[in-house]
Amino acid sequence: MIQPFDDTYFMKKALQEAEAAYDKDEIPIGAVVVVKNQIIARAHNLTETLNDVTAHAEMQAITAAANYLGGKYLLDCTLYVTIEPCQMCAGALFWSQISRIVYGARDEQRGCVEMGTKLHPKTKMEGGVLAEEASTLLKRFFIEKRNLN
Amino acid sequence: MIQPFDDTYFMKKALQEAEAAYDKDEIPIGAVVVVKNQIIARAHNLTETLNDVTAHAEMQAITAAANYLGGKYLLDCTLYVTIEPCQMCAGALFWSQISRIVYGARDEQRGCVEMGTKLHPKTKMEGGVLAEEASTLLKRFFIEKRNLN
Repeated sequence: MIQPFDDTYFMKKALQEAEAAYDKDEIPIGAVVVVKNQIIARAHNLTETLNDVTAHAEMQAITAAANYLGGKYLLDCTLYVTIEPCQMCAGALFWSQISRIVYGARDEQRGCVEMGTKLHPKTKMEGGVLAEEASTLLKRFFIEKRNLN
Repeated sequence: MIQPFDDTYFMKKALQEAEAAYDKDEIPIGAVVVVKNQIIARAHNLTETLNDVTAHAEMQAITAAANYLGGKYLLDCTLYVTIEPCQMCAGALFWSQISRIVYGARDEQRGCVEMGTKLHPKTKMEGGVLAEEASTLLKRFFIEKRNLN
């Protein structure tokens, strides 16, 4: 059966959000929350614009999705995020009891896997979807930053 | 020398925030951020009111403090919080590079110490200030909740 909406499809939407962050000179990370093949939240990193370390893509996506659903638990939801969540975002996802997390590229230094952040028992996490695209965008951002300074 | 502003003084302010949460039927946890003996942010848990798992006292206090300071790093700041921060809040505090965290009571189940969340190398954390008061308020809240249901 043809499956028009798969992980790659939704990760592309998260990548579009990452590109929107890039265009604002923000660390390019994007996220979407999906329930029953419908995107209910889109967000990208806004830490510089908002002067706020908590304004990661995932945090905003969690808040927006809960707002859409009218309840704070993201049951039956999947979060797609271009880079592996950090401790803060994984901690927020723990509280949300989200069903599934799909990330693009690993964050070997600050990611929740390396940091040992605990996920909720109800949550499954997997990575590697469009990892190359997510990683390339991030690297390009940091190389350009270095060359400017 | 008499020291009018000590950890107990500021933790009492955080406890007043926790009581404000209690009065709103929120899990009673409060926080303040202090720089040079001045409170620059006050917040209490609002997860139920806002339908948002990210609305912990610490998260709001971090955002408010950064807003006050006009920069996202909480250098030379101390966060006073009535209960030990969770993974999410400790993860946010990591990004903020805050100088000091003082908590009241331990959270032996979901606290960042038990969960193994990493703090920033610049951050010192200590606990036990007005722990009994913070813990009693929290216990009272949950006992009342149980009796109502």
